Amino acid sequence: MSDQETRQLLVEQLRAFYGRDWVSGTGGGICGPAEDGNLLVAPTGVHKERVHPDDLFVIAVADTSVVLPPANAALRPSECGHIFTLVARERSVRSVVHTHALSAVLAADLARATDHIVIRDLEMLKGIRDLTNQDVHLLPVIDNTAREQDLVAAVAGALSDPRFKSAWGVLVRDHGCYIWGADVWEAKRHTEVYHYLFSALVARSDVGHPSAIQSTS
Amino acid sequence: MSDQETRQLLVEQLRAFYGRDWVSGTGGGICGPAEDGNLLVAPTGVHKERVHPDDLFVIAVADTSVVLPPANAALRPSECGHIFTLVARERSVRSVVHTHALSAVLAADLARATDHIVIRDLEMLKGIRDLTNQDVHLLPVIDNTAREQDLVAAVAGALSDPRFKSAWGVLVRDHGCYIWGADVWEAKRHTEVYHYLFSALVARSDVGHPSAIQSTS
Amino acid sequence: MSDQETRQLLVEQLRAFYGRDWVSGTGGGICGPAEDGNLLVAPTGVHKERVHPDDLFVIAVADTSVVLPPANAALRPSECGHIFTLVARERSVRSVVHTHALSAVLAADLARATDHIVIRDLEMLKGIRDLTNQDVHLLPVIDNTAREQDLVAAVAGALSDPRFKSAWGVLVRDHGCYIWGADVWEAKRHTEVYHYLFSALVARSDVGHPSAIQSTS
Amino acid sequence: MSDQETRQLLVEQLRAFYGRDWVSGTGGGICGPAEDGNLLVAPTGVHKERVHPDDLFVIAVADTSVVLPPANAALRPSECGHIFTLVARERSVRSVVHTHALSAVLAADLARATDHIVIRDLEMLKGIRDLTNQDVHLLPVIDNTAREQDLVAAVAGALSDPRFKSAWGVLVRDHGCYIWGADVWEAKRHTEVYHYLFSALVARSDVGHPSAIQSTS
Repeated sequence: MSDQETRQLLVEQLRAFYGRDWVSGTGGGICGPAEDGNLLVAPTGVHKERVHPDDLFVIAVADTSVVLPPANAALRPSECGHIFTLVARERSVRSVVHTHALSAVLAADLARATDHIVIRDLEMLKGIRDLTNQDVHLLPVIDNTAREQDLVAAVAGALSDPRFKSAWGVLVRDHGCYIWGADVWEAKRHTEVYHYLFSALVARSDVGHPSAIQSTS
Repeated sequence: MSDQETRQLLVEQLRAFYGRDWVSGTGGGICGPAEDGNLLVAPTGVHKERVHPDDLFVIAVADTSVVLPPANAALRPSECGHIFTLVARERSVRSVVHTHALSAVLAADLARATDHIVIRDLEMLKGIRDLTNQDVHLLPVIDNTAREQDLVAAVAGALSDPRFKSAWGVLVRDHGCYIWGADVWEAKRHTEVYHYLFSALVARSDVGHPSAIQSTS
Repeated sequence: MSDQETRQLLVEQLRAFYGRDWVSGTGGGICGPAEDGNLLVAPTGVHKERVHPDDLFVIAVADTSVVLPPANAALRPSECGHIFTLVARERSVRSVVHTHALSAVLAADLARATDHIVIRDLEMLKGIRDLTNQDVHLLPVIDNTAREQDLVAAVAGALSDPRFKSAWGVLVRDHGCYIWGADVWEAKRHTEVYHYLFSALVARSDVGHPSAIQSTS
Repeated sequence: MSDQETRQLLVEQLRAFYGRDWVSGTGGGICGPAEDGNLLVAPTGVHKERVHPDDLFVIAVADTSVVLPPANAALRPSECGHIFTLVARERSVRSVVHTHALSAVLAADLARATDHIVIRDLEMLKGIRDLTNQDVHLLPVIDNTAREQDLVAAVAGALSDPRFKSAWGVLVRDHGCYIWGADVWEAKRHTEVYHYLFSALVARSDVGHPSAIQSTS
């Protein structure tokens, strides 16, 4: 896929996510693969449903430096950059989505004092690569920090934790989630699936469904 | 209706269902009548809101074999195929919808250890063919399986159970539902009506409404 | 407004109501003023978001007879006709909306064994003609019947009940609601406002808000 | 930004807010900066999703008088005018949004007998200018009045209360909210963010989340 096609696809996803109230109020972000192996990322602090393909930056996977800025000099690259490149390096993926979806915040609440949520007994688990609907899936939950870049250490910890090796996302308490895939299409699918799973878990927890009971240790 | 019109109508339904979050994350499926008496079915593993009319397969009602593949050789027919053709044979219908709607999952939860839910005291029951708003409607609930095709035996059991002879759908625990109609328009109507009924039952159950109390035996 | 403009406006409202899930599964209906003083009404049993302006009937306010059928001879006039003309005669209005909105069903549930709900302490009451936000507004709730036309007697009873003289609608238990206005624009406004009030009442009832407590006598 | 561009932008916001059910039933309102330093405001009593750019008034920040009426003499300026100009004067902003969102009403309910709600432990607080996600944010809640203009004194009280100096909005019990920003884009962002915060607070309160517990004194 050409950079121009990826740029178009990324802004389409932002508009779609905005329509679901996952990136409202200028929140959230997305990146996808640039042809040179680096990442195309959306700017920060802008209304995500109004991002134009030409507004994206190319940033280096290696060190998050700006390889190619947009023509509009007023734009700054997403504050998620350090997390996006960390995930790209550690998981060999090229598309990461960051949302502030309320369902993600409420799902993270279910973890209480633990460092993860448990998702099981849902067919939609199959929508995450390599999972089956028989899996008891652990998704890491990390604490929020004052600045987005200060989440990097905790994300790195979650990525290196063997309990979470099948996870394609990280929940951030009081904040939202990061979800990734090999390319934009897989990241889109994983994003839709995880948000469905969050809503299902929250709804089942509300009525005391056994599969939604989380460990409290 | 020509195959070309049916293809167009089926992809329109997928887009509409996606808009309601019933087939997100590449989940769900649909089939409709081909002019030769067989079934037009959507491919598996694709973003359902992006299916093109030319992407559909014709599969044989008799044995689920592919009669006519799409030009795009990368596509595979829906994994729901065996269930679609089973329903088509047993109920003499030609359109079946499969969704992962959260309302269907939560409605199936209400069955607990039983094999059905009971829907009553709702005018919208009239939207299902041959039902009245006085009916106490039983909808079968089957257990989920590791692979979609392994649901066939349980669906067949539900279809042959005299308690469920007025049902135009089957709920699959932790998974979603299959809903059918003689043609695409009736399947669409039944799909909308059953999902409304699921939401109503879940909402009434949440507040302890008498009509939402299910048998526990 | 010409009949052609009214026809266009009415099908626009049906599409908008469908988008809110108030008339899904072919449910619901609407009428508006014909230039000859009678009513333009939508056909029954059709997908309401797909009604074409030419599909509407003109029916007589006096006796619900068909004054002008659509060219499409397969269409039948709305089963709400007798209620629409009753309301038109008794309240001197020319636009009535019928929805199956789940919020209307759940609001009617709050009436329990009584024949009305009480709505108060909400600014949006001002959106109903002649009401203030200080009003304690009584909306009648009638029992559902096997056939839509059998609701006529109970609707007539509600319309003649002095307790409900300020009501611009009637809730039907397990079914939905009828809401009216002098013209299509007022009926649209009243429909939006009452559905907001239903949702507010249900949400407040769920958390035990004092203003949502209904009399149980 | 030219007046013509601002007019266009304001009606776009009204359509978007209507799509979220924040200004249904002709409720709600918005204003933005006129080039002469005054305010462009939407008319009252009209369907907000149908306002045309030419329908807006220019009103004076100093005394709310009409500086420039629309050509359509049937239109009257928003009843929010006195509040809009008060906020514009006291906070040196030029865009104020008024919604009847149910989430705002339900969030105001959480204040019970107190004069504010407390929002904390949410990343989205950063979407409000000058706030951090570490803040314990107090948003004033005032009582509703029979007429919109009678809210002015209570809004003025909230604006001058040092506890609320970081607030970019006011909740009105049983009614909705006023939210502002320096310009239309900031008011839009603040409106989306506060409504997200309202929904989060209500959802967390429903399940007894510690951060949603409000003071009761």
